[in-house]
Amino acid sequence: MFSNNESLSLLISFLSLFIQTPPLPEINVNEWWGPRHLKSIQDTSIRPFVVEFNASMIADLRHRLRNTRQMTPPLEGTGSEYGFNTKEIPRWLRYWAEEYPYQDRVVEINKYPQYKTNIQGLDVHFVRVIPKVPIGIEVVPLLVLHGWPSSYLDFYALIPVLTSVSPHRDFVIEVIAASLPGFAFSDGAVRPGFGVDKMAVVLRNLMHRLGHKKFYTHGADWGSVVMSNMATFFPNEVLGYHSSMPTIFSPLQAFARIVGDYFPSLVVRPEVADRMYPLSNFLSKIVRESGYFHLQATKPDTVDIALTDSPAGLLAYFFEKISVGTREYYQHRADGGLELHYTKEQLVDNLMVYWASDSVATAGRIYADSFSPRYFSLRTDSIPSSVPAWILQAKYEISYIPPWMYKLKFPNLVNETVLDTGGHFLALELPVVLAEDIVRAVVEFRRLQHKGKKKEGRNCEVNSDFVDLLCLLQFYKVINLLCI
Amino acid sequence: MFSNNESLSLLISFLSLFIQTPPLPEINVNEWWGPRHLKSIQDTSIRPFVVEFNASMIADLRHRLRNTRQMTPPLEGTGSEYGFNTKEIPRWLRYWAEEYPYQDRVVEINKYPQYKTNIQGLDVHFVRVIPKVPIGIEVVPLLVLHGWPSSYLDFYALIPVLTSVSPHRDFVIEVIAASLPGFAFSDGAVRPGFGVDKMAVVLRNLMHRLGHKKFYTHGADWGSVVMSNMATFFPNEVLGYHSSMPTIFSPLQAFARIVGDYFPSLVVRPEVADRMYPLSNFLSKIVRESGYFHLQATKPDTVDIALTDSPAGLLAYFFEKISVGTREYYQHRADGGLELHYTKEQLVDNLMVYWASDSVATAGRIYADSFSPRYFSLRTDSIPSSVPAWILQAKYEISYIPPWMYKLKFPNLVNETVLDTGGHFLALELPVVLAEDIVRAVVEFRRLQHKGKKKEGRNCEVNSDFVDLLCLLQFYKVINLLCI
Repeated sequence: MFSNNESLSLLISFLSLFIQTPPLPEINVNEWWGPRHLKSIQDTSIRPFVVEFNASMIADLRHRLRNTRQMTPPLEGTGSEYGFNTKEIPRWLRYWAEEYPYQDRVVEINKYPQYKTNIQGLDVHFVRVIPKVPIGIEVVPLLVLHGWPSSYLDFYALIPVLTSVSPHRDFVIEVIAASLPGFAFSDGAVRPGFGVDKMAVVLRNLMHRLGHKKFYTHGADWGSVVMSNMATFFPNEVLGYHSSMPTIFSPLQAFARIVGDYFPSLVVRPEVADRMYPLSNFLSKIVRESGYFHLQATKPDTVDIALTDSPAGLLAYFFEKISVGTREYYQHRADGGLELHYTKEQLVDNLMVYWASDSVATAGRIYADSFSPRYFSLRTDSIPSSVPAWILQAKYEISYIPPWMYKLKFPNLVNETVLDTGGHFLALELPVVLAEDIVRAVVEFRRLQHKGKKKEGRNCEVNSDFVDLLCLLQFYKVINLLCI
Repeated sequence: MFSNNESLSLLISFLSLFIQTPPLPEINVNEWWGPRHLKSIQDTSIRPFVVEFNASMIADLRHRLRNTRQMTPPLEGTGSEYGFNTKEIPRWLRYWAEEYPYQDRVVEINKYPQYKTNIQGLDVHFVRVIPKVPIGIEVVPLLVLHGWPSSYLDFYALIPVLTSVSPHRDFVIEVIAASLPGFAFSDGAVRPGFGVDKMAVVLRNLMHRLGHKKFYTHGADWGSVVMSNMATFFPNEVLGYHSSMPTIFSPLQAFARIVGDYFPSLVVRPEVADRMYPLSNFLSKIVRESGYFHLQATKPDTVDIALTDSPAGLLAYFFEKISVGTREYYQHRADGGLELHYTKEQLVDNLMVYWASDSVATAGRIYADSFSPRYFSLRTDSIPSSVPAWILQAKYEISYIPPWMYKLKFPNLVNETVLDTGGHFLALELPVVLAEDIVRAVVEFRRLQHKGKKKEGRNCEVNSDFVDLLCLLQFYKVINLLCI
């Protein structure tokens, strides 16, 4: 017996018979993204790194903040519907210039060991926390990846939870929190084409450099997209993939989403249907909130000139997205609701990482090089990965995906955690909830691993909660093959 | 006999029978857009105005320019595909800070008489040049309107041509070059909803304030959209409308454009077909170049905080659009090809107008308040206007519209001038060509006017070059009416 929900899944699976799975793109694990002259003298050491807020940088920054030009008042009766409310600017500038405890915060930022190492020509920056463990406890590596406009700092509050020893577990997690290439203290590529697929290779190579041939992953925002690519390209190295922003772009899922606008019960459980439908609400939100995306996907360098030069501009640009990413309806608040979820220190720490590393321009290019014809032509979201996946879906995340739909990409989806709260910046907002979910995921990934050698390709057993459509799909494909 | 081209027009006209013409929106010519407390003490005088570049503003600006943060290098091998090329920044900053002749330029900017007068709560700024004329020569008023990101200065080189006396004409033109509300030295509205339709009312009221109950108009970019609205709302006051960017958004024209992708000859003359098709080229250009549009239509205040604070950011943001608006293919040039068409002074004069008036934020809101559900719901582009229109289509303008299609909106289209060169910033690029075309248009508008009382509604006689489909349409509508 199929529920309605699953009968649409069946249709989609059937349709997928007629859509050729794209080939895995050719992966060059040595592709060089740094300046060419460094190729012959690459330094492959792992160097300790410490963030500095030096006096001249702080003096210059304070000068800019104190001399920010007076801003045009917001329109009468508006909150943040026209963007960041300029009435909020003065108090933030004052805080950043006069009250933000620079030296305390840089100590906080440096509380975990940080390193840099050169991968494919790019210095990649990361935090690495290796817990001390009693004998008999295994240490397993987990790579966690942030998105835009946040940073590796997102994960600081998760690290104690992730790296703690528990009597209920025979393992403990080693955390590697990397900065995406181009973000914070990681170098950006010096030539075009460095999209999320290329970043996936660089960060996989980072794990190899650290001695980890097999590892677990977690990603949010762009970090999640990079990790999805990594699981696609290296299914035998990624032992499990946890995502707080599971998204796929493929014709089939788009088709199913549209069908669901007329018959939501065919697509999504009623309890979470309002996260997807009416589709017009979702689409108008996307249009309303994706102006920055559109601009950065097409002309990142233009806007980043202003954001590099003006700290007030950077603050407004980032805070607006953090506000609406947290709760869509905060667009109606003048203060963007930011301090309902985050401390002032946290919010400005994040700005400081971009400012001190001068990375807003290189980070902004991720949009142009990933939302590009080159990357789209790979259709990596249409290539299923056998890596076990675990998704956590916060209530106010940008989009919701029904598990059966995500299985088109990750047939070995082992769990969906649905939160009744939480937004896009979940690591900052609910760090313990997220960390505990990641731990539960790793427990499950390990259980599956120990249960037997991981099956290559699609795994029909693990998904007891859902009818595994992809198994049926394989069956159809075999029949199809035999008939031809 | 109909040519293919015209038979599609016929179909479109036929289809339009089934689409109800929207009603004219209710026009409140006294709607108040300024601070409420000023309503009872409105000053309706016309005050002379002089632009000032004062010493403290210049000192602050130079300080910002000299202390612009160092920029991330462009990606290897790129021109301006990722936006403004940062290698170009230093020489522009040097020019603006060290070489731009501030005092000479402000004299140049003030060479024509400028004024401000309060309309509906907003101080509206304009240049007014009333030519001295011999007896027997009539002076006719022409309102000219710029767009974004340029200004009333666009028209400076046109003014001598427009206002000159000619032995071939019995009239001479008085030029009113206004700043769009929110732009340059014109106030922006203090509350939401001030779209192009509302601007049309303000600027029509400006003409009344100047004693002109009937007048000619010319518009480019947003100025053209405002003028189209003005011609729709006040068809008995606008004596003729000249546009260098004729555009309409309506379902019928969209349908026709799509049909033309398969059968271009049904839509457009072969000589200019490459300006419209393949549609995919046009659409990908629009997507590539409209990131700023999307951002400003949704979150103008956010990005304008950075642009208000950083002159380098403002320069890059404006120059990138001026470059690509001039020639699409200049995206491949590091220097954006700017100096092939404009002088450094001209380009920086335009920045200075925005900087000195601190108007980038209020100007940016035109996108949000015009590309809005409120404005779209009026469907003003689907309301035909009886005002005689004359269009000039430059080769590199953003889009091309076949005259028959533009007649859906302006059935009394009297001429199309097609240029084999020229881009979106035509007043700056080819001022004499544009000015002479406007003069020719006014000559023709006057000839029609004198020929007889202007026909209300659609005029079937003047369009000798094209089969007047709208006449047929009227005929069908009469039959339709009789049948019901």
